[in-house]
Amino acid sequence: MNSLHLELIEEEIKTFTNDLPQSPAHLYDPIRYTMNIGGKRMRPVLVLSGASLFSDDIQAALPAAVGIELFHNFTLLHDDIMDMAPLRRGQPTVYKKWNPNIAILSGDAMFAESLRLMAKSPHNALPRILESFTKAALEVCEGQQMDMDFEQQACVTIPEYIRMIELKTAVLLAASLEIGAYCGGAYSTDAHKLYEFGRNIGIAFQLQDDILDVYGDPEKFGKQVGGDIVSNKKTYLLISALQQADGYLKEELLNWMQAGADQAVDKVSGVKEVYNRLHIREQAEAEMKKYYDVAMQSLLSVGADEKKLAGIRAFADALMVREQ
Amino acid sequence: MNSLHLELIEEEIKTFTNDLPQSPAHLYDPIRYTMNIGGKRMRPVLVLSGASLFSDDIQAALPAAVGIELFHNFTLLHDDIMDMAPLRRGQPTVYKKWNPNIAILSGDAMFAESLRLMAKSPHNALPRILESFTKAALEVCEGQQMDMDFEQQACVTIPEYIRMIELKTAVLLAASLEIGAYCGGAYSTDAHKLYEFGRNIGIAFQLQDDILDVYGDPEKFGKQVGGDIVSNKKTYLLISALQQADGYLKEELLNWMQAGADQAVDKVSGVKEVYNRLHIREQAEAEMKKYYDVAMQSLLSVGADEKKLAGIRAFADALMVREQ
Repeated sequence: MNSLHLELIEEEIKTFTNDLPQSPAHLYDPIRYTMNIGGKRMRPVLVLSGASLFSDDIQAALPAAVGIELFHNFTLLHDDIMDMAPLRRGQPTVYKKWNPNIAILSGDAMFAESLRLMAKSPHNALPRILESFTKAALEVCEGQQMDMDFEQQACVTIPEYIRMIELKTAVLLAASLEIGAYCGGAYSTDAHKLYEFGRNIGIAFQLQDDILDVYGDPEKFGKQVGGDIVSNKKTYLLISALQQADGYLKEELLNWMQAGADQAVDKVSGVKEVYNRLHIREQAEAEMKKYYDVAMQSLLSVGADEKKLAGIRAFADALMVREQ
Repeated sequence: MNSLHLELIEEEIKTFTNDLPQSPAHLYDPIRYTMNIGGKRMRPVLVLSGASLFSDDIQAALPAAVGIELFHNFTLLHDDIMDMAPLRRGQPTVYKKWNPNIAILSGDAMFAESLRLMAKSPHNALPRILESFTKAALEVCEGQQMDMDFEQQACVTIPEYIRMIELKTAVLLAASLEIGAYCGGAYSTDAHKLYEFGRNIGIAFQLQDDILDVYGDPEKFGKQVGGDIVSNKKTYLLISALQQADGYLKEELLNWMQAGADQAVDKVSGVKEVYNRLHIREQAEAEMKKYYDVAMQSLLSVGADEKKLAGIRAFADALMVREQ
């Protein structure tokens, strides 16, 4: 993780939000609000990391970096309406603070702004950058739709689940690296290897999130432990447990899934007990490790300076153990 | 109006919808549905018209043409949620036929698809095309926000209203011509003159719509005459009347604006009577003519074949008198 990169990104985001028009306030205030709430800025950091592998001119990748962050925040804005989420990063979501119509429209404007920034990338790389960006943008929509469909679906398989998190989360991390690489002048083969690294590490991140929800340290995790269990969210852990449990354990699991909000604490320990009996954590960690290893193989095959590649690896490793 | 252009566009739209993935069905079915409902395809026709002024290779502009139509339909999808409109082109709107979440997300995917098509434009013109597209996309959002703000606002001025219709409607028509011109290899000066033609003719179109709502032939207009009056929509006519009426007429107008849905027929004739007394129709027609004339001046200054320019003029003229 390069702190200079993060500084550049925050600076560029500040310039961007300062330069936004004042009016119509209901269109632009939510964008300023969303972009200034903060966040890890993981995607723009990946854009700059991708670029720095192939060029010392990081500036050329800055618009795309902020563009990707804007796009990501646009998807959160719309997801929060669909999921009726009242809070994001500890602050009221846009649709709660203003209203759903304002959240829809300012989200649309963020998408348009993200494209405007993306188009400021080096012109010779623009066709490939746009291809990568639009492919990821469509896939993120597909992933969100699958996620919503899963809520209504009685049975979700592990391959379906992996595909959903790949689309909803991993491809944008992958595209961030790939777009950064193109901004830095990379060949397609190297950019694609970086993409594969990002795609696989992204799936590993999401599996880690599923594990941390149940087994994370509440102090470090930052979210309520067991939130996925309370809401019956079809995570890797729950899907695996539903597939593998039978007899008494299956009955136990299904009973806990019926439990109301007043039984939340007991429900979390009850479901966790089922997971433990089935060794679900170990299976999830093995799956996560599988994607992590493939990611690292892809990374090492990229034709770039080894020290710089090690930097990206260290960034990924720091994120992989971040809150355990 | 070139019927060959329209055929090419319909063919390309058919190919596009056929090539869309089947799954997730809730994401892609609404896109197929929306694009196959029809419509005048005015924006893609303008893209091809713009291109044909500068090049015989219309094919190069086809992806951008369909991209603009997709973008336009995406804005309608989201507008219909915000306006709670049950019908569009006589068919149930996406948020009614499916639900608001599906309309939000499939709209987002349409925006991404529109960009994917736009990026297939000739690479040397891509930076200018994207600049034009993203500027228009942002302005359309601004226009929609202004339109929503006006509903809550006690007083709207004529310049504010003109600015709103410019942003919400005219700039995308203008950008369609400009993007088409760039696809055809036009210089910026000519593309910009075409943009100015589109912007001014677009404002004239919208003023005509306001007039037709009250004075149009119900047979030809295709919409319920007086719909704007019934809903107290702040059109050019109502804003002008509110500004100019005083004494008894003002009282009369304000009273009619309080009338309920059960008095719709009387309300339409009552408000129309006020308009007639104030000669609002003549004023609106004079304003429309002003923008029309500026549009034609811009068109004639474009450095392109006169016969082809006459074709664009004929297309605009046909639209200007289409339902009177």
